[in-house]
Amino acid sequence: MSYDLIVLGGGPAGYLAGERAGHAGLKTVVIEKRALGGVCLNEGCIPSKALLNSAKMLDYARHASVFGVSVEGATIDHKAVVARKNKVVKTLVSGIRGAMKANGVEVVSEEGVIKGKDGEDFVVEAGGKEYKGKKLLIATGSMPAMPPIPGLRENYEAGFVMTNREILDLEEIPESLVIIGGGVIGLEMASYFNSVGSKVTVIEMLDHIAGPTESEISALLLKTYQKKGVDFQLSSKVTEVKNGAVVYEKDGKIVECKATKALCSIGRRPVTQGIGLETIGVATDRGAILTDRHMMTNVPNVYAAGDVNGKSMLAHTAYREAEVAVNHMTGKRDYMRYEAIPAVIYTYPEVACVGETEETAKAKGIEYDCQKLPFIYSGRYVAENEGGESLCKILVEKKSRRILGVHLMGSYVSEMIYGAALMIETEMRVDDAKELVFPHPTVCEIIRETLFKF
Amino acid sequence: MSYDLIVLGGGPAGYLAGERAGHAGLKTVVIEKRALGGVCLNEGCIPSKALLNSAKMLDYARHASVFGVSVEGATIDHKAVVARKNKVVKTLVSGIRGAMKANGVEVVSEEGVIKGKDGEDFVVEAGGKEYKGKKLLIATGSMPAMPPIPGLRENYEAGFVMTNREILDLEEIPESLVIIGGGVIGLEMASYFNSVGSKVTVIEMLDHIAGPTESEISALLLKTYQKKGVDFQLSSKVTEVKNGAVVYEKDGKIVECKATKALCSIGRRPVTQGIGLETIGVATDRGAILTDRHMMTNVPNVYAAGDVNGKSMLAHTAYREAEVAVNHMTGKRDYMRYEAIPAVIYTYPEVACVGETEETAKAKGIEYDCQKLPFIYSGRYVAENEGGESLCKILVEKKSRRILGVHLMGSYVSEMIYGAALMIETEMRVDDAKELVFPHPTVCEIIRETLFKF
Repeated sequence: MSYDLIVLGGGPAGYLAGERAGHAGLKTVVIEKRALGGVCLNEGCIPSKALLNSAKMLDYARHASVFGVSVEGATIDHKAVVARKNKVVKTLVSGIRGAMKANGVEVVSEEGVIKGKDGEDFVVEAGGKEYKGKKLLIATGSMPAMPPIPGLRENYEAGFVMTNREILDLEEIPESLVIIGGGVIGLEMASYFNSVGSKVTVIEMLDHIAGPTESEISALLLKTYQKKGVDFQLSSKVTEVKNGAVVYEKDGKIVECKATKALCSIGRRPVTQGIGLETIGVATDRGAILTDRHMMTNVPNVYAAGDVNGKSMLAHTAYREAEVAVNHMTGKRDYMRYEAIPAVIYTYPEVACVGETEETAKAKGIEYDCQKLPFIYSGRYVAENEGGESLCKILVEKKSRRILGVHLMGSYVSEMIYGAALMIETEMRVDDAKELVFPHPTVCEIIRETLFKF
Repeated sequence: MSYDLIVLGGGPAGYLAGERAGHAGLKTVVIEKRALGGVCLNEGCIPSKALLNSAKMLDYARHASVFGVSVEGATIDHKAVVARKNKVVKTLVSGIRGAMKANGVEVVSEEGVIKGKDGEDFVVEAGGKEYKGKKLLIATGSMPAMPPIPGLRENYEAGFVMTNREILDLEEIPESLVIIGGGVIGLEMASYFNSVGSKVTVIEMLDHIAGPTESEISALLLKTYQKKGVDFQLSSKVTEVKNGAVVYEKDGKIVECKATKALCSIGRRPVTQGIGLETIGVATDRGAILTDRHMMTNVPNVYAAGDVNGKSMLAHTAYREAEVAVNHMTGKRDYMRYEAIPAVIYTYPEVACVGETEETAKAKGIEYDCQKLPFIYSGRYVAENEGGESLCKILVEKKSRRILGVHLMGSYVSEMIYGAALMIETEMRVDDAKELVFPHPTVCEIIRETLFKF
């Protein structure tokens, strides 16, 4: 018996591909060694949002007096937060299982390894059984990068160092937490543990936090979290991890930062080892599977979607890539575009960005105009906030007047940015965008206000 | 001395017209008898949002235990809430004053009345002084409708009955509140006073609440607020207002509803009386000034924007109409479109809608397809909510596959709806909308999920 499609990995790319392929009538099997939903649902985006939501409730209660609400004592029960997080994850995993069933997709809960070809079919072994399929989608995702820093791996195994997986299941709030890497994961965890009472230190190799985030927003976010009490050590290189301390070099000096726990959030690398890629000759570049705009690899009928191709490493990119792959398999015209993919950091305030920054535009030689405003130009923002940093920054191409980038820091921006992505995806000109009606009073009106400065 | 433009009224239409006209180099005067910002800023959208934000903080604190946060004794200090509201309004009014100054716009704080023409100029009298202008924009807004119900006006004057103006300045939380009219204002005030402890009754003439809101959402909102303890009397006609009671007829029976205070929120009517329209022959229809798609009245060089033309009676419509009017004055190609104007109700959960409903589509003879989903298909929604009603309902034109309407009830929808408005404004087809990338995990992904059902 042969499947139309074998999907290797049941994370965002894998399960969505399964759903769409099953819906399109392809006989499909999804092979996943851990829980359906992948890192995103089980140990990433969703659990972190459940935690951060509880921290937000705590922060709201603490600052409610500003708004005329008095609260006598607000405390967080971290165990209860983790228990609720587990319940949320369970609900959503079973939702995915339901979607697989509804679309006639078989799910195999085993580790799958590609074994080669049998005639036209690809062969994947899982749990001692062989699965054959006409097409293959590799969606094995990524894992935390763990560079060869002395003591890092040993202290990970000993339990002092955690990755995103372990930190989300911590049973107790650590008295102090040192975070290696000030990217999205590091910052979101810094935000949660700072709110619930840990003394948090973030060690970052670059001279700024939040990776490729627009630089003014990155600076405002840094300032905000410094005010909240997080200690940032920038331009600092971790040289050694001991049990109970992280050692780093800064300005030529060696510093030891003691902590109850450490989080390693330096980045993630595609899972391309040990899955049998070599048996069918799938090409990789620096550990990531090479794909074209249809998500096809160099091997006909073999596709790769999600973190494994290393292109954007975001769950929503994975979704879209999976769709493009399935559309290509079923003969629907579609191709992958990376120009209008939003990125969100769920700090408090949130950060949400899409499109070019000044830095990337300059690097590409694009001539642009740029305008910006703080959110205090939104009436709703003023009604709902007291103080705090915020920014809306918009880039427009000089000649065509097309909107190139929208970068936001403030309340609700995670839920606003898709509209800005829509502007970029449709190559909207700033003068057309000015004619859009934004509801009043909303925080998103800040986009309209900023557009009017052009 | 003659102005290029006289603006009568300093609300959203008036002050925005002033800002844009001043920016475009027109010598402009804005005449406003009360505070700049009009009803919206001083006794409408903004103050109600400040109040509702405080109530939200209170509700969050009360329900925080669900999320692992324990809060002891959360209480609201209504006087402090009102004081903060006044501070917010003051800040924003002074912001508008600043914008007028920055754009060289003169502001006259007097009641203005049109006196006729002097040659080519229009003449407006304000504070005993005459102002002459080549162009005139009428933006006198609207006032609460007060139908000839026996006892209504007398008890308004005696203080038992309030309008949106008085209720926002109430010094104490009334033990009980009866609200005449279950439209947007009535529901938002029901939401606030129910949260802060009043016993609230809403009397509505129609068999549903929230006026033209999509009917399934209206029903869900009713159910939600019934559960919260608000008493709704639908299909009920108020026949008399006494001091301390509102009398209504329901199913042929006369019922007396006693209450500490009453709110009259039946609707609003354009302010077209006593402003001298007749002196220059401006045509009205049922009390509203007739305008074309450039916001011009029947009289050359006389425009009307905002509630006074009765077209949509929303602050954001007023903004856009004011822009269109000023663009027409300055020779920029622009015209007013009403197809993609969003509407928001700031209840908890919020409601946000744009475009056709099933009812309006049927009435227009448009053939449509319709799909819907509750928000539990969004991972973030599940992570941040426990129970509660929600809905995403999308209408698509059968033949063209254009998106016709998006109707949302759930968290953050006020800040999401502009993106849906953008889809409708750009006449986006559902198949193109499916290719948009929404950030994960967000509540707005529910739009993407629902789109995929088409």
